[in-house]
Formats: sequence, C-alpha cells, structure tokens
Amino acid sequence: MRVIIIGTGLIGTSIALALCEQGSTVWLTDQDPGAARLAADLGAGVLLSESSHDQADVAVIAVPPAAVAATLAHAQANRIARYYTDVASVKQLPVAQARDRGCDLAGYVPGHPLAGREKHGPAAARADLFLGRTWALCPLPETSGEATRTVTEMVSACGAVPVSTEPAVHDRWVALISHAPHVVAAAMAARLEQAPAEALDLAGQGLRDVTRVAAGDTVLWTQILSANAAPVAEVLSAVAADLAEAARVLADGGGRGVCGTEQEKGVAALLDRGQAGVDRIPGKHGGTAGEFAVVQVVIPDQPGELARLFQATGAAGVNIEDVRIEHSPGLPVGVAELSVRPAQAGVLLEALQAGGWVTGPARR
Amino acid sequence: MRVIIIGTGLIGTSIALALCEQGSTVWLTDQDPGAARLAADLGAGVLLSESSHDQADVAVIAVPPAAVAATLAHAQANRIARYYTDVASVKQLPVAQARDRGCDLAGYVPGHPLAGREKHGPAAARADLFLGRTWALCPLPETSGEATRTVTEMVSACGAVPVSTEPAVHDRWVALISHAPHVVAAAMAARLEQAPAEALDLAGQGLRDVTRVAAGDTVLWTQILSANAAPVAEVLSAVAADLAEAARVLADGGGRGVCGTEQEKGVAALLDRGQAGVDRIPGKHGGTAGEFAVVQVVIPDQPGELARLFQATGAAGVNIEDVRIEHSPGLPVGVAELSVRPAQAGVLLEALQAGGWVTGPARR
Repeated sequence: MRVIIIGTGLIGTSIALALCEQGSTVWLTDQDPGAARLAADLGAGVLLSESSHDQADVAVIAVPPAAVAATLAHAQANRIARYYTDVASVKQLPVAQARDRGCDLAGYVPGHPLAGREKHGPAAARADLFLGRTWALCPLPETSGEATRTVTEMVSACGAVPVSTEPAVHDRWVALISHAPHVVAAAMAARLEQAPAEALDLAGQGLRDVTRVAAGDTVLWTQILSANAAPVAEVLSAVAADLAEAARVLADGGGRGVCGTEQEKGVAALLDRGQAGVDRIPGKHGGTAGEFAVVQVVIPDQPGELARLFQATGAAGVNIEDVRIEHSPGLPVGVAELSVRPAQAGVLLEALQAGGWVTGPARR
Repeated sequence: MRVIIIGTGLIGTSIALALCEQGSTVWLTDQDPGAARLAADLGAGVLLSESSHDQADVAVIAVPPAAVAATLAHAQANRIARYYTDVASVKQLPVAQARDRGCDLAGYVPGHPLAGREKHGPAAARADLFLGRTWALCPLPETSGEATRTVTEMVSACGAVPVSTEPAVHDRWVALISHAPHVVAAAMAARLEQAPAEALDLAGQGLRDVTRVAAGDTVLWTQILSANAAPVAEVLSAVAADLAEAARVLADGGGRGVCGTEQEKGVAALLDRGQAGVDRIPGKHGGTAGEFAVVQVVIPDQPGELARLFQATGAAGVNIEDVRIEHSPGLPVGVAELSVRPAQAGVLLEALQAGGWVTGPARR
C-alpha cells in the first residue's frame, strides 16, 4: 500500500512507522518542514517534497480537527491519493465542513484511532501505538465501498481493530468516555491551585489518579473540546448537576453524621450509581476490573530488587497481568502490587514467602 | 508499649500488626467477635475478652466516625487505658461529640492515619500500611502533653510520620484532597451507568484513572462524607460551578471549532488552572510528577517475560521507579512503561535494545 501522511505529529508519525513496518511505501509532509524531516529521520518514510511519486492509495490527514476540511479540499484538488481519511478525535465538525466546501465525499472515510499519549510530536511516536486499539471509522452515505475497504485495510495493517459507526454517535461516545472526564479531572485539579502545601502533602494515590489526565496539553484539549462542544456540554451539565445536588444535601445536613437521613440517602445514591458505572468499564483482556487478585510484596527501593522479584514470579510459572508500585515517600522501601489470575494467587504467595519476600494478603 | 485496639477492621488490625512487629503487647476487641478472632488469628494480638490485663498505655478507637465519642466514653468509664486516640477520617464531629458527652479530653488525642485500601476488614490488613505515610494528630487545648507524647510515639512505632494540626483545619484539608475527589469520581462514573456498551469499549486509561476510587465501599464513604459535610460541600460547589460554566460556554459556542473565541478562552482557562493544580501535587520521593523519564518496552503477555525484562534492567544497573503495564485487549502483547531517573533513560534504552527488546522512545 502507498500512503501519504499529511501532518507528522504523534499520530501521523505513528501511523507512518506502523505502515513502514508492514512494508508500505509512506510519504511524509507537514506544514512544519522540521517535523516532517524528524519523522523521516525516525524511519517513518520519505519526504513528499523531495520525491516524485505516483498517486497514493490513501492520504491520511493527521491535523487538528478544525484544519481537516481545508486540508482535505486542498489534497483532493491536487488528486494526491485515491482515498482520504483523517484522525481527528471529533467527527461531525470536519464532516460538516468538508460537505460545505464541496469535497468529494465518495473518497473520504472519516476516522479516529482511539490511542494517544500525554506527549506529542513525532519524537513521541511509536509503531505499536495502535496495537489492539479501537479505530473508529465513520463512512458517510456518499462514501464508496472501495474507499471504506481500502482505509479499513490500512487500519488493520496498523494493528488496530476497526469499528464502524456514525459521526454523531462517535462524538457522543467520546464526549462521555474521554472529553468530559478530561474536564472533570481539570475542574477537580483546579481546586488544588490555591491549596495549602501542607494539605497537598497528605495527598494519596486517589487524588493523583482522579486528576492525572489534567496534566495533558491544554491547547490541543481546548481545540478538541471546542470542536465537540454540544455532546461534552451535555455530559458536563449532568455531572455538574449531580455535584451541585450532592453539595446541597451535604450543606443542608450540616455534618451531624446521623445514619439514614435524607442527606445520607442522597449521597449514597450518587456513590452507588458511581460504583455501578465503574463496574461497567471493560477491564484488560475484555473482562471487568475485578477479575484479578492482587498480591502485595515489599521491595527495597534499589536496583535489582524488581529483577529478583520477577525472577521469582517467573520461576513460579505465574503470569503477572499488571504491576503497580507504591513508594513510601522518604523511605527506602516500596510495595509492589502484582495482579494475577485468582487461581494463581496462592501459588505466587507461597513461592514468594519461600523466597524470603515479605508479602501482604492476596485480595480481589 | 501496651495497646488496646477497639475495632479490628482494616485500620485497627493494621495498627495491631505494626505494633506487634515492634514488640508491643496488643489486645483486640470488636463488636463483631468474629472480626476480632480473625485479627488475632492473623497474629495481630490477643483477644481482650480472654485475657486479664493491666491498664493499657493507649486505647486506639478504630470505629466509624459517628461511633467514636460513644466508644471513647465507654472505654474511659472502664479506665481501660491511660490515653486514647481514634483513627476516624474526620475530626471535628467526634471531638464535638466527645466534648458534649463530657469525655476526659486531657487523655484524648484525636488522630487520622492517611492510609487505606479499597478493601476492608481484618483480612486486608498489612503491618506496613502506614510505612512513610502521614498520620495527622489533632491534640485539643485540654489534651495533656504526656498524652500527646505517648500517642505520637505509638504513631512513629507504626512507621508513620506524625503531623500536628487542628480538627477544623484537618477536615478542610481532607475534604479537598480525598473526600471531594471521591464524589467527583463518582459523579463522572455515574454517567457510565446507562452508557452504551459500545461506547465503553472505546474507554482508555484516562477514564479508568478518573473513576477508579468510585469503586470503593459506598457505605463507609457515605458516613465519611456525611461527617465532613460542610467542607466537602464547599469544594463540590466550586467544582460544580466550574463544570456548569464550562458546559455553558461550550453549549453557547455551538461546536464551530473556531480558535480564540470566548468559548475557547473560558475552557482553556479551566484546563490551565487544572494543569497548575496537578503540578502542585508532590510526587514520589518528594519531587513533582514530571521528574522521571518513561521508557516503553513491548512484552509478550506470557510467564517469564517480565522476569527477563527486569533481569535486563537490573543488569544495566538501572533502578525502576515505577512500572505501568498497558495490555492490548485480545492480543498476546503488552507495553511496559518503566519510569527511571532521566539520566538513566539512555543507558536503559541501549541495554534493552542490545538485549533484543523492542522499545519506544524515552519521554518525560
């Protein structure tokens, strides 16, 4: 397959790397020539400007959402490829703008790979960024079957799982699972801006997890949110209403800590709904979050200890599904939490204890 | 030191285990005799009911917030210990109730260890739960210096770092860094309860992190929130207002994706405040979140591969500060993200590549 990548940021360069690994011919271009050159130096393909080339099979438009339609129109005017796709994390806006500009929609397959990093630019790209990830494709009523088949083939070549949906449905879904959670994390994190340092010293893993995504690129996220404004606003309104109501019942109750009051019932109902919501998020391997047992092991914070630990787990024949390491600030010791299939927890505990490791009880 | 633990849940039993390791004599009691017996079987001490005992140095009241004052009054009436402390995650409510009941405040040092798990009960207890963690102590104007010194000594024996503050200040701090974030996570997770399964299939690590704590015990959390209602309500009101305002500017803007509009400025300002807030959370080893470089390594999802990986990192003399493993659903491959000191990232990458590992670029 012959592919032109327009926009060699994180996503564009990662697609290029993945396709090069599969033996495709890839040409690179970017409005910043330095970015395109860096991508080429990383082995992602050859510069479009320095090579004569035939018409490509697919041109991938990997630019910010608001720039997709203009880029598509320009590329189609120059007939650089038979088919076109984009990777913007919203779909209705670029599709409407492409229609307004009179782009050839028969050759356009709007797309969105559900993969990313908190870092950007070609240097952060990875050939395996899309391995096993979902990649939404939103063929339009006008899109030809051959265009859809060709772009789907390219998505599969990147190692991703193509999922077909409609632009409006896609935008509602990502508003719920990605865009709104980002704003919620930012709104909670914003309360920390003026907080006393002593209060932040007490922070545990919970606060870190809730606010982590708010560290992401605020310029890019502003564009994304702005381009998917209505569906995001709908989710945020609902979250704001639930939080305002929780604040109201808590303030009305006045902290008397009496069980069974209307205050407690209101708060409990929200927490129960939240717990039910978390339970619906699919876990790794397609299961739910609770499918693994967790074994805790105390580890000295020095080189070689994790190697010793994983030698022991490997020797026991136990596959570690996930690892979380909790450090004790200021102390030369940490706790590794090893997620394993429940049936293997006992074997692992015995093997570690026999090897002199200090372990905590296994838990689900 | 001789200590009585009243309430052998996660926290009470963990304190007992930690003190037993230090050679203290520990007696256990719980209104559920089965819970106390399980704690004793785990090596956390001996049952109070089955042993004659002298007056203890400290009685630790490890019961829910609303039950602290009554338990303290009863224990003091029986003179079971010289000094008393509690572990409730709110402080103003039990202190006010103890004062109302006429408890002896000279012998009472209100406390709160900043440690916990998402699991509860004596079986989840760990002797090292408090290692390096902050433990707030809130001596009252009436509290004797000797009571404070003795309880502080016990806290240090558990491996925790005692921090002295006032009940009202403590409650405002934990509302901000723990209680309100819990409700915010629950309110976001509650939106997922009725979401299409296809939307949740697209969920990435971001959504999982934002909502994780909402999986916790909803009954206990309802009690905690109710007992710290006013400070939590204040934070939630502010978060709700920011989210409602973000929803308003997004809905008004109508998703045209135009840069530099009032809509974008409003959203960008909230995201910027959120980013500034996240940056203020102290990281591991007392540094900030960005202090490590992250090296990505592709690992086959089978026993022994993590062992091989950490053998390689150990052999390279590189200390792994944190590990995160991202699985690719349905594929026999995952990506391990290894956090290392930036100066060691290059060494690690070279060593891994020399060993045949497929790596991604290092990033901050």
